[in-house]
Amino acid sequence: MRLQAAIDRVSLEEAIALAKQLDGRTDILEMGTSLVKDYGNLAIQKLRAALTQTELLVDSKTIDEGAYEFNQAFRYGGDIVTVMGAASLDTLKACYEVAERENKTMMIDLLEVTDEKIEKIKDFPNAIYALHHSVDRKDQFDATASVEAFHENFPTVKRLAIAGGIDLEQAARLAEQELIEVVIVGSKITKAENPLQSVNEFMGAVHK
Amino acid sequence: MRLQAAIDRVSLEEAIALAKQLDGRTDILEMGTSLVKDYGNLAIQKLRAALTQTELLVDSKTIDEGAYEFNQAFRYGGDIVTVMGAASLDTLKACYEVAERENKTMMIDLLEVTDEKIEKIKDFPNAIYALHHSVDRKDQFDATASVEAFHENFPTVKRLAIAGGIDLEQAARLAEQELIEVVIVGSKITKAENPLQSVNEFMGAVHK
Repeated sequence: MRLQAAIDRVSLEEAIALAKQLDGRTDILEMGTSLVKDYGNLAIQKLRAALTQTELLVDSKTIDEGAYEFNQAFRYGGDIVTVMGAASLDTLKACYEVAERENKTMMIDLLEVTDEKIEKIKDFPNAIYALHHSVDRKDQFDATASVEAFHENFPTVKRLAIAGGIDLEQAARLAEQELIEVVIVGSKITKAENPLQSVNEFMGAVHK
Repeated sequence: MRLQAAIDRVSLEEAIALAKQLDGRTDILEMGTSLVKDYGNLAIQKLRAALTQTELLVDSKTIDEGAYEFNQAFRYGGDIVTVMGAASLDTLKACYEVAERENKTMMIDLLEVTDEKIEKIKDFPNAIYALHHSVDRKDQFDATASVEAFHENFPTVKRLAIAGGIDLEQAARLAEQELIEVVIVGSKITKAENPLQSVNEFMGAVHK
């Protein structure tokens, strides 16, 4: 299992400082959607330049104009770029084509996507499918139970990620479950009083 | 009916020049998602500064973190901001709250949204609901027929917009139909050889 630490809702300077701090200490660093939208794709280069050992995920949340957005995000330095599962199948295909051609990775964000829709978009073998519980939603979700249910419904999907309020205990249980490739953690690392301590704790849980 | 001219996939300098050219000649100018993602929310201010008579729509395509994204887009000068109908109901509520508080407008992009989902999100009376056919999709759609069908299924939704390859003839037919508040036109205006001539033609069709 790998850890993805997400940076959101800070200034670009703070984001760069955090990226330097977390380089080599998390498997993947995520440039959150708020940073993409506040500072634009050109800012990807600045985060890229801060990283020497950690992969960069650009949380573009593409939902249309798939080829254009994926080309831009890879061009400026993303290793993994996200597309919404809610996008049309043609948009997903366009993103996947770019990712494959560039030898990079597409992550499909399954936020608010029905099982019926997943059935239609489950055949991108190299894509990572991210189970995602919206930060705006008021209800809670059980991470390992969600993963188990997804795995039963869609056993052919091999690369899975999960996001949405994952804490240390859930991360440890996900590691034991051995179905998830990437655990995504946001504010519990990047808004922690001591991000270094927090990232080390999560890395311990994820890689034990 | 009002015309919204969308700018996409050009440099920020070209976008600003186009905005100055179209100011007062279109009812609404759209800062397309590609511009938001390439140059960031800070660039909204530059388009805002180019406009004196035309409203500015920021095509943020928000799908999570509704309050944050809407606050940012309005703060930098958007009059109308878009959220995806595919977002969770809680995200839509968060966006709507911000729009109402700021006395601005939320547009809901219905790209790839099922009727079942529309049923759940149809009760934002001041929002504009945008029927939208993805540019990535290979199939065609019939604008007036889509509007007619939507209106029959959701008669309580009063503010409607439409986007997706609308040409002059379709714009004229939509004007006659009198069900649409905003017609969104992209490359047929902003990538035309002569954008001024094209915008005048579309304004003629929309306001006849």
